[in-house]
Amino acid sequence: MSRDSQTGYRLGEIVERFGGELIGDANIVIKQVAPLSTAQPEHISFLANTKYRHQMQTCRAGALIIAVAERDATTLPRILSNNPYAYFAKVSALLNPRHTEEPGIHPTSVIDVGTTIPDSAKVGAFAFVGKSARIGERAVIGVGCYVGDGVEIGEDSLLYPHVTVYHDCVIGSRVVLHSGSVIGADGFGLAKEDGRWIKVPQIGRVIIADDVEIGANTTVDRGALDDTIIEEGVKLDNQIQIAHNVHIGAHTAMAGCVGVAGSAKIGRHCTVGGAAMILGHLEIADHVNISTGTLITKSIVKPGEYTSVMPFSAHQDWLKNAAHLRHLDKMAEKLAELERKISELERNKP
Amino acid sequence: MSRDSQTGYRLGEIVERFGGELIGDANIVIKQVAPLSTAQPEHISFLANTKYRHQMQTCRAGALIIAVAERDATTLPRILSNNPYAYFAKVSALLNPRHTEEPGIHPTSVIDVGTTIPDSAKVGAFAFVGKSARIGERAVIGVGCYVGDGVEIGEDSLLYPHVTVYHDCVIGSRVVLHSGSVIGADGFGLAKEDGRWIKVPQIGRVIIADDVEIGANTTVDRGALDDTIIEEGVKLDNQIQIAHNVHIGAHTAMAGCVGVAGSAKIGRHCTVGGAAMILGHLEIADHVNISTGTLITKSIVKPGEYTSVMPFSAHQDWLKNAAHLRHLDKMAEKLAELERKISELERNKP
Amino acid sequence: MSRDSQTGYRLGEIVERFGGELIGDANIVIKQVAPLSTAQPEHISFLANTKYRHQMQTCRAGALIIAVAERDATTLPRILSNNPYAYFAKVSALLNPRHTEEPGIHPTSVIDVGTTIPDSAKVGAFAFVGKSARIGERAVIGVGCYVGDGVEIGEDSLLYPHVTVYHDCVIGSRVVLHSGSVIGADGFGLAKEDGRWIKVPQIGRVIIADDVEIGANTTVDRGALDDTIIEEGVKLDNQIQIAHNVHIGAHTAMAGCVGVAGSAKIGRHCTVGGAAMILGHLEIADHVNISTGTLITKSIVKPGEYTSVMPFSAHQDWLKNAAHLRHLDKMAEKLAELERKISELERNKP
Repeated sequence: MSRDSQTGYRLGEIVERFGGELIGDANIVIKQVAPLSTAQPEHISFLANTKYRHQMQTCRAGALIIAVAERDATTLPRILSNNPYAYFAKVSALLNPRHTEEPGIHPTSVIDVGTTIPDSAKVGAFAFVGKSARIGERAVIGVGCYVGDGVEIGEDSLLYPHVTVYHDCVIGSRVVLHSGSVIGADGFGLAKEDGRWIKVPQIGRVIIADDVEIGANTTVDRGALDDTIIEEGVKLDNQIQIAHNVHIGAHTAMAGCVGVAGSAKIGRHCTVGGAAMILGHLEIADHVNISTGTLITKSIVKPGEYTSVMPFSAHQDWLKNAAHLRHLDKMAEKLAELERKISELERNKP
Repeated sequence: MSRDSQTGYRLGEIVERFGGELIGDANIVIKQVAPLSTAQPEHISFLANTKYRHQMQTCRAGALIIAVAERDATTLPRILSNNPYAYFAKVSALLNPRHTEEPGIHPTSVIDVGTTIPDSAKVGAFAFVGKSARIGERAVIGVGCYVGDGVEIGEDSLLYPHVTVYHDCVIGSRVVLHSGSVIGADGFGLAKEDGRWIKVPQIGRVIIADDVEIGANTTVDRGALDDTIIEEGVKLDNQIQIAHNVHIGAHTAMAGCVGVAGSAKIGRHCTVGGAAMILGHLEIADHVNISTGTLITKSIVKPGEYTSVMPFSAHQDWLKNAAHLRHLDKMAEKLAELERKISELERNKP
Repeated sequence: MSRDSQTGYRLGEIVERFGGELIGDANIVIKQVAPLSTAQPEHISFLANTKYRHQMQTCRAGALIIAVAERDATTLPRILSNNPYAYFAKVSALLNPRHTEEPGIHPTSVIDVGTTIPDSAKVGAFAFVGKSARIGERAVIGVGCYVGDGVEIGEDSLLYPHVTVYHDCVIGSRVVLHSGSVIGADGFGLAKEDGRWIKVPQIGRVIIADDVEIGANTTVDRGALDDTIIEEGVKLDNQIQIAHNVHIGAHTAMAGCVGVAGSAKIGRHCTVGGAAMILGHLEIADHVNISTGTLITKSIVKPGEYTSVMPFSAHQDWLKNAAHLRHLDKMAEKLAELERKISELERNKP
């Protein structure tokens, strides 16, 4: 774990900032967050999942953040909140502010013509910023990043090392792009003629709105004709593939290894479980939750949870079972035949 | 969308180059391609999917590229083609030629001993080219690329920024490698002894033939003993994993997130849908189409389409259903027993 | 294939080093390993899979490594071993030693304050090593790598070009990280409040023990509060996603495209097939083997093999079948009804 913050905050200060009801000594100083199981007196911990409630009994934390309903479940100093996990997130952000980068342009970086870097921004070693790019105040272009010609990067955005942004893409404010992410590579547009593939030039861009975070090695392709669009507050985990002309609605979150095929339109406030796949040209309504490993093959018009998981079993059991998986139609036919026969037998009953 | 090309082309010029029948004024000047829904008079659009035919009614494009059968479906100036999408691809390539890179070696790049860069080629900032590499005429090594010792890169090939090519790999002509792709990392070769893994040195190479395109963050491993081979005209989308000693036949295309395990041999003119997986040591015939999300566990000897998708449903419906998925063998047994009983009942019929 | 090693080794020397029984001339000189099908007299080949036994008949290799049971299956010079593949791996490593990098710090690299690079280590061109990092003897930091502040890298570890290690992560000795791998990016920790995501700071680290190898473009996220831990001897293939706070036991191996969700605890000596997915907060026992493409949704307490694969079929067959996949509950109900009716019929038998 990283070192504790130097000075810490009093519980009283924390409640003043973030609200909630404090039970216990307002002068207790908290220096860091920690899990229930390892927290020490200078730490604050939280209970968001009642499954871990028993850990509160032996917990040595200086204070806890818990749900209002858990008020009497501990004698430790505690902050009651309607949303303990979100409260905890804010306290942790207070104690672990984003590392402040000293602004400045590293002498090894290359800034092409027509691009001005604000004094408040930072460009790391070996970073390359192309022609006529626009870089916002306090933006950080990490070590070895590539920012193509005409790219726009908003205020306070952070590109970790080794991010690639192809030409003309637009990145909003307070966006975080993790290492290895590639924004704006060509979409997979191919026409077939005489058994050979002809490339369809990909002349759209990627537009990423404010407050988006994109994980390590995630790829977002530029549009074929129109743009690929990621609305505000979208959170994408690692190793996700977003194809050309996809549109992702605001505040949707996708876990690792998800794939979204071309021109799919995903609603707002959706969640997509890890390794789920969404076919192209579909529409997914707002507030849809797609389970891990689920393949979405048709548009979804109603909010709710959708699943297509094949349950696992011990291999020997699976072997016995799998043979039938390919012959359900035969099974259904047999069943229909038996129904017919039984009806007949019943009709002939003495 | 990117800016329109400066001068444009007359419809007459386009038909002269690419054939097809022109209906309408040959002097209309086209500056860019655009979708039916947003095209303006200086744009040319296309109809390849009859699903979008209704959009032609309100389309404001200067001209359309349509199938011969659609000849009378619009009054707009139009080019009739047997393959409108391929025709459109060529027109778009004409209007959107690949950005011409000024040749030259960026002063920050490092070229190791024994390597000569042709005057017509370009090496970007922070690019590294190893010992005794061979770089073709007009090849472009993008910003921050790594080209290992002994690598060969053919004429007119384009490595976008942050491509990695390990030592001794061979890249053909007119190949495009997108950012974050890694060519020639070690295959996953391990022998087990006393519960520990011993690495099997991977001494093969990757050989990529002409006119191949490889997407962002795709990985192609070098062979264990022999080489991994990607034949001409193959197109790989993003985030694909090609294991050691795989052989992909000419003009096969794979969508994003596909995985191909070691020593699989894929035929020519195949298509592989997104996130499909192909097990190792299999052979797939020419002209096989594998559906999205399908796991191929056995060799395929006949052309055609193959699928193993579990259909998704609302989570509650899936829950009711999933319990049975693991017990199909029991269901089959019950069915057999009922058949037996019914036969007996029928035999005993009065 | 790469060139043969210059001088080679006599069969006698090989058996002296690695044991086994030699049948044939101890003075035969072996310069390289090769497959049975293409081996020449200066090569040694092996048979680990009896499926390839017929290839021994026409094999031109100078010698073979075979199982004791195959003693009389060939007349070629041969080494008998209880584990021919592991034996072969060692011989290949002898003939193909890791390329020795000349130590030294490339003049284009940047080493930040407080970091000392041992004379025996190598730092490649455009590599960046942050503040107060600790780099072990003979470690190699490849071209364009990023090693964050406070990172520790053990002796003899090898970072191929374009590896990213975020701040404070710990990499053991003899670790190999392939190009494009990203170690220590933020885990996907989000709390929801009023329909918006609040980032939970990820303050843990990644700890990678000795003798781990991590494939190209694989990502291992830093822990949320505690650390993400990869124990010794673990082997991860390409394009794998390891989420925050995952713990992988020693000597476990995972094939390409696997995903492991947050806080999953995987045992020792497990194998995970390609594209398998493991949900978060699960525990997997030691010696568990998970099949390719399998989704693990519950903890596994017993060693053994586990599978959840949907078998593929020709698309037309699948279409007929798939309709029933979603209605197994209906099928089960029908079956139960028929059973009831038959019982009744049997009871009423004359």
